[in-house]
Amino acid sequence: MSGSVFGNIFKVTTWGESHGKAIGAVVDGCPAGLEIDEDYIQSFLDRRKPGQSKFTTPRKEADKVKILSGVFEGKTTGTPISLLIENTSQISKDYSDIADKYRPGHADYGFDMKYGFRDYRGGGRSSGRETAGRVAAGAIAIKILRTMGIDIMAYVSQIGDIKIDLNNWSYEEMFNNSLCMPDKEAAQKAGEYIEKLMKEKDSTGALVQCMISNVPAGIGDPVFDKLDARLSAAVMSIGAVKGVEIGDGFGVVRARGSENNDSFRVEEGIVEKCTNHSGGILGGISDGSTITLNIAFKPTPSIFRKQETIDKNLNETEIEIKGRHDPIVAPRAVVVVESMVAMTVLDLIMSNTCSTMDKLLRAYDIDESAGQLLAAHRKFIED
Amino acid sequence: MSGSVFGNIFKVTTWGESHGKAIGAVVDGCPAGLEIDEDYIQSFLDRRKPGQSKFTTPRKEADKVKILSGVFEGKTTGTPISLLIENTSQISKDYSDIADKYRPGHADYGFDMKYGFRDYRGGGRSSGRETAGRVAAGAIAIKILRTMGIDIMAYVSQIGDIKIDLNNWSYEEMFNNSLCMPDKEAAQKAGEYIEKLMKEKDSTGALVQCMISNVPAGIGDPVFDKLDARLSAAVMSIGAVKGVEIGDGFGVVRARGSENNDSFRVEEGIVEKCTNHSGGILGGISDGSTITLNIAFKPTPSIFRKQETIDKNLNETEIEIKGRHDPIVAPRAVVVVESMVAMTVLDLIMSNTCSTMDKLLRAYDIDESAGQLLAAHRKFIED
Amino acid sequence: MSGSVFGNIFKVTTWGESHGKAIGAVVDGCPAGLEIDEDYIQSFLDRRKPGQSKFTTPRKEADKVKILSGVFEGKTTGTPISLLIENTSQISKDYSDIADKYRPGHADYGFDMKYGFRDYRGGGRSSGRETAGRVAAGAIAIKILRTMGIDIMAYVSQIGDIKIDLNNWSYEEMFNNSLCMPDKEAAQKAGEYIEKLMKEKDSTGALVQCMISNVPAGIGDPVFDKLDARLSAAVMSIGAVKGVEIGDGFGVVRARGSENNDSFRVEEGIVEKCTNHSGGILGGISDGSTITLNIAFKPTPSIFRKQETIDKNLNETEIEIKGRHDPIVAPRAVVVVESMVAMTVLDLIMSNTCSTMDKLLRAYDIDESAGQLLAAHRKFIED
Amino acid sequence: MSGSVFGNIFKVTTWGESHGKAIGAVVDGCPAGLEIDEDYIQSFLDRRKPGQSKFTTPRKEADKVKILSGVFEGKTTGTPISLLIENTSQISKDYSDIADKYRPGHADYGFDMKYGFRDYRGGGRSSGRETAGRVAAGAIAIKILRTMGIDIMAYVSQIGDIKIDLNNWSYEEMFNNSLCMPDKEAAQKAGEYIEKLMKEKDSTGALVQCMISNVPAGIGDPVFDKLDARLSAAVMSIGAVKGVEIGDGFGVVRARGSENNDSFRVEEGIVEKCTNHSGGILGGISDGSTITLNIAFKPTPSIFRKQETIDKNLNETEIEIKGRHDPIVAPRAVVVVESMVAMTVLDLIMSNTCSTMDKLLRAYDIDESAGQLLAAHRKFIED
Repeated sequence: MSGSVFGNIFKVTTWGESHGKAIGAVVDGCPAGLEIDEDYIQSFLDRRKPGQSKFTTPRKEADKVKILSGVFEGKTTGTPISLLIENTSQISKDYSDIADKYRPGHADYGFDMKYGFRDYRGGGRSSGRETAGRVAAGAIAIKILRTMGIDIMAYVSQIGDIKIDLNNWSYEEMFNNSLCMPDKEAAQKAGEYIEKLMKEKDSTGALVQCMISNVPAGIGDPVFDKLDARLSAAVMSIGAVKGVEIGDGFGVVRARGSENNDSFRVEEGIVEKCTNHSGGILGGISDGSTITLNIAFKPTPSIFRKQETIDKNLNETEIEIKGRHDPIVAPRAVVVVESMVAMTVLDLIMSNTCSTMDKLLRAYDIDESAGQLLAAHRKFIED
Repeated sequence: MSGSVFGNIFKVTTWGESHGKAIGAVVDGCPAGLEIDEDYIQSFLDRRKPGQSKFTTPRKEADKVKILSGVFEGKTTGTPISLLIENTSQISKDYSDIADKYRPGHADYGFDMKYGFRDYRGGGRSSGRETAGRVAAGAIAIKILRTMGIDIMAYVSQIGDIKIDLNNWSYEEMFNNSLCMPDKEAAQKAGEYIEKLMKEKDSTGALVQCMISNVPAGIGDPVFDKLDARLSAAVMSIGAVKGVEIGDGFGVVRARGSENNDSFRVEEGIVEKCTNHSGGILGGISDGSTITLNIAFKPTPSIFRKQETIDKNLNETEIEIKGRHDPIVAPRAVVVVESMVAMTVLDLIMSNTCSTMDKLLRAYDIDESAGQLLAAHRKFIED
Repeated sequence: MSGSVFGNIFKVTTWGESHGKAIGAVVDGCPAGLEIDEDYIQSFLDRRKPGQSKFTTPRKEADKVKILSGVFEGKTTGTPISLLIENTSQISKDYSDIADKYRPGHADYGFDMKYGFRDYRGGGRSSGRETAGRVAAGAIAIKILRTMGIDIMAYVSQIGDIKIDLNNWSYEEMFNNSLCMPDKEAAQKAGEYIEKLMKEKDSTGALVQCMISNVPAGIGDPVFDKLDARLSAAVMSIGAVKGVEIGDGFGVVRARGSENNDSFRVEEGIVEKCTNHSGGILGGISDGSTITLNIAFKPTPSIFRKQETIDKNLNETEIEIKGRHDPIVAPRAVVVVESMVAMTVLDLIMSNTCSTMDKLLRAYDIDESAGQLLAAHRKFIED
Repeated sequence: MSGSVFGNIFKVTTWGESHGKAIGAVVDGCPAGLEIDEDYIQSFLDRRKPGQSKFTTPRKEADKVKILSGVFEGKTTGTPISLLIENTSQISKDYSDIADKYRPGHADYGFDMKYGFRDYRGGGRSSGRETAGRVAAGAIAIKILRTMGIDIMAYVSQIGDIKIDLNNWSYEEMFNNSLCMPDKEAAQKAGEYIEKLMKEKDSTGALVQCMISNVPAGIGDPVFDKLDARLSAAVMSIGAVKGVEIGDGFGVVRARGSENNDSFRVEEGIVEKCTNHSGGILGGISDGSTITLNIAFKPTPSIFRKQETIDKNLNETEIEIKGRHDPIVAPRAVVVVESMVAMTVLDLIMSNTCSTMDKLLRAYDIDESAGQLLAAHRKFIED
């Protein structure tokens, strides 16, 4: 029944509820020797932090992360890394009056059916807050990937009907506005749209795009641990996600083979593709080109209008949600997307180090012609 | 580096390549006492069998399944069930001339980068043939779910621009035409479209819809083994899939919270929802309503036109694929979708039997008030 | 490379090093509805706490556990339970002078070879302190098992040459002496032996016996997750363990089949065995009788004598260990043994709830004759 | 409830019962490029084959293995390798008269309690025959390890009271006698002892010793996937095993720290230990010296004497086992021990390729100073 352990080699366990004492994650299987400190991880959590705009909830959470284990003299030791974030601004009284009601669009009903009861405060484990642990752990994965030259970038590409215009693309803009849109004009229009929705006590969905560059070809373990299968599970596990597509995604339904196939070519001794309809993944394995994902986020279910629902005793009733809720989920989820993608790619990259006998033998300095095993300690001396 | 074992409790291992001696699967963790025989499993494989129409490849594969273990006197014993399908009609000569070339849209390049070389015949492990093992195993999962009243139905809902019309819906029609479309007119139009494409040596994508009914509420293990996360991984692992969405899917991007939320109500003592935008899953847990998935299949990459590509030595070259290839993947994949969905739902249903202390104690006939353990053999006598 | 996640259904992740900020564990998959509080878990940790006798190291560790998540209004919610124990009395200066040397009998060398470097303070992750997280998690498993009538009892049965005498057996005595020996005389003799050893700056090994009663027959998942296989891995993972045996253990080498076989009989409608040479496990599955394990603990490697060794640069050198070290490991490990055994048995008990179709259907209230699925919420109303 | 999948990276699924159609295994995660053929694997199965002596059962099983997938042009492709061995000499009539009775010392009762019924023919899945799949899979692991210079050797070191004398050690002798004892005189005495037992319709236990040489230091993933924990689970999963010990094993109970610690020294630039009480594993990680295991096998429970037992309806009855049964298990299990040990060591060796950032980066040819990712295909061209 456990469902909070992610990955096979780079394993991440997350824990914590919205109104519990703390939130956290344990990273097991991180290679030793990576330089890591709390400030670095904090910078990722700050991208999640509410209170940055008029659109995000002013909960004033400090969200300060502490590293409790697995790091010594500034480097990972290879042992489990425990990350803890204390919950400092949770006020329970916001929720008690709706403890017995099932909020539409939320997991309340499912949790009651599964567990018999639930921590109703703030959504408990189903709250978006649980993702703080994922972001802290993801920060570590992202650093390892960067060391390998692999970059992950996600942003909001559409809110309601407002799409970003690639001609207006600006990477820095993404960090200037609170909607994570890399297009100043689109961000402005979307901002106006959201203000209008807030007055109407409503919320909106959005589209997040994620690009992963420089993943070497060959990553992904067919047939069930294909890279696209694992990525889709990773992002679909983020709350409010209702759809994932790779490359042209649902556009392939209308396409022809002659249009959809990506031809290969060679450019200065490096294999490239002429097009990238596949979104960087073919047959479930990375093909060396940029991996592109689109992720659909539904509107925040917590709206302030009166809604019809039922309570625990199956009486029909009304519910009026109070408290502090964002009218849009996606901007805060952008860094969560990057984290989940990072942990997935890293897990499969680590898995791929033994895909051939050649790689396995080189990992242990085995000289096949001589047939000798050079003891690892000899290397240790040289280091 | 292993990637061919699926599931945690109901575990399925698949094996086999397009031109190897056989294809198969091992089902580990199937509850004992299920009536199973080869004919039942064969009926599922027959839905996959090519040669049924002018659109599917006449390979005359017998695809006869044998049960080699795990079944005694017509019932599963609880021990691993080995299913084997011999490859009887594989002719290697179709492929040898393209052994050194990377077919566009296929996994050839990725496999070479991963493994250093590959079984080039017919796509090897990346061939669609590998799914025969999944279908055989899925048939067992489907039977168990049916015993629980849970039904899974998938069909092709769109080919190119041609969509099925729900007013023309006919369940039986799905089995009358080789495109698996439950709408006679749409199937006819789509058929004409595909014939046109075949003349042009091209192929088309399609959309498959899958519905799962009567899944009890509470299924799915947050946060990483959520039902939607696991379902998306399961179907994304099928070759040619480029997108998955649940319920309204990508439609949520444009939606408002007031439109997207599903209100609850009570109908004759049973909880129901007024709408089903969520597609049966909320917060990653089943909510008791019908689960709906849309799955985007890209066009068959193997088209008969000349295509530009490169070879193993990175020389640019042309490739002309011969042999027998379907101009559309989706109709044959419909039963694969049902199998993957079944294995996933069953795995999570089995996982959910211990979600509460109450359920765990009842499973062992523990009378909490008396505090006594009634030995399992007493029950055994009564049975 | 991860190795700190234990179990398949009742999953436990542990983290923390001897001189890190804290030690802890995350329990994922605990059924909801179990009454749990910090005092209960604390009682188990107190059994581990040093400073209780002249034989255990006076480190005055408070070892206070906190529950950070997964419990609401006194009951487990089914979500991950994070347990944290702060390290309050770690003084680094004891170890810095031996940072570069490999202590004989310890994992120092192995850790350096594996990770390139290590947290040398107090043994880091290889320190016995890491087991505090296991004990905290094990306490939860033990409570669930007790609710099912299953009891686990471990004790020290031999120290050096001094064995307990079953005629002198006294359960309470185990808690009276700091050696965990349920025999007052043996405890006294062993105490004198250990004092002698301490004067000689030496240490001793010991034998721990563990008995598990009332495990229902049928627990264990052949062939690789057999109950004895899983139990042996669980206890062998405890530091200083060099051997595990079930029932007659190594005594079977000299035995004949006619002596070793346990015959079955029926006593008041309950199946029993006439003898228990198998130690409660046959063919890897529990047979309903008491499960007995013997576990061999080696002497504490940290002795105060001068020892020959090498340093990181492979120079031969001497090492003189200072600080606070117990001359015997086993008494403090007794509760660790119970915890590991409990987590293992519970994991396999939870796994066994779906071993037959009959059990699976009853778990979901399926009435096979009617073929109807009774919605879980109907049950929820009745509760 | 699944229990037939072994390992995390080098994953092996076994299937098959004594009297089913066939026995087999699927190896998932084998690195590509290993030269493998059926003759090589057959040589291992032949070491298991009965009919070689007067002490082993003349069942005339052909036990011919076939490779059905995962190998192309003589080399592993990296895809799952399916191994199948047909059961050609199973006669059911030997067992039908005891179908309702529980054989003492066997898993019959446990299987009935677990699954509700069982394939009673020849012990079904609990039969020793199931290990043929493990041996076939283990042969592949053994070859990979040999390529790395790692050797595994197991033999019978004691039968009843008769122990081998190290002064009489002869490696070749192990293959000359059917008891796998590397001491001609001991084998002769043991042979006489067994003949005597056979006349008395009895059986004997035995001790198997296993040595693994040249395992590099650093293998094993603390704390739960320690090398000794994984090895003990692996061998304990073999039928009839009741005890496992590493190095001095249960001898450590009586030892002192000063006697038990292994000091390190340097010999021609290579780290060695002065003694090897630890049996090659310290803190759960290999220390570079020879790993030694002792494994206790109980006597064959199937003896021809009349035994008291009960039947399915809980009536007390007698049982008289007929058919063909070895009076000793261990000699045939020697190759099974080597296989299980090989699969375990290899799995952890593959896991260890990413234990440090340095190793991970070198695996992908990352030049840390340049920060560049050299595409894998460049290497592919050079090969």
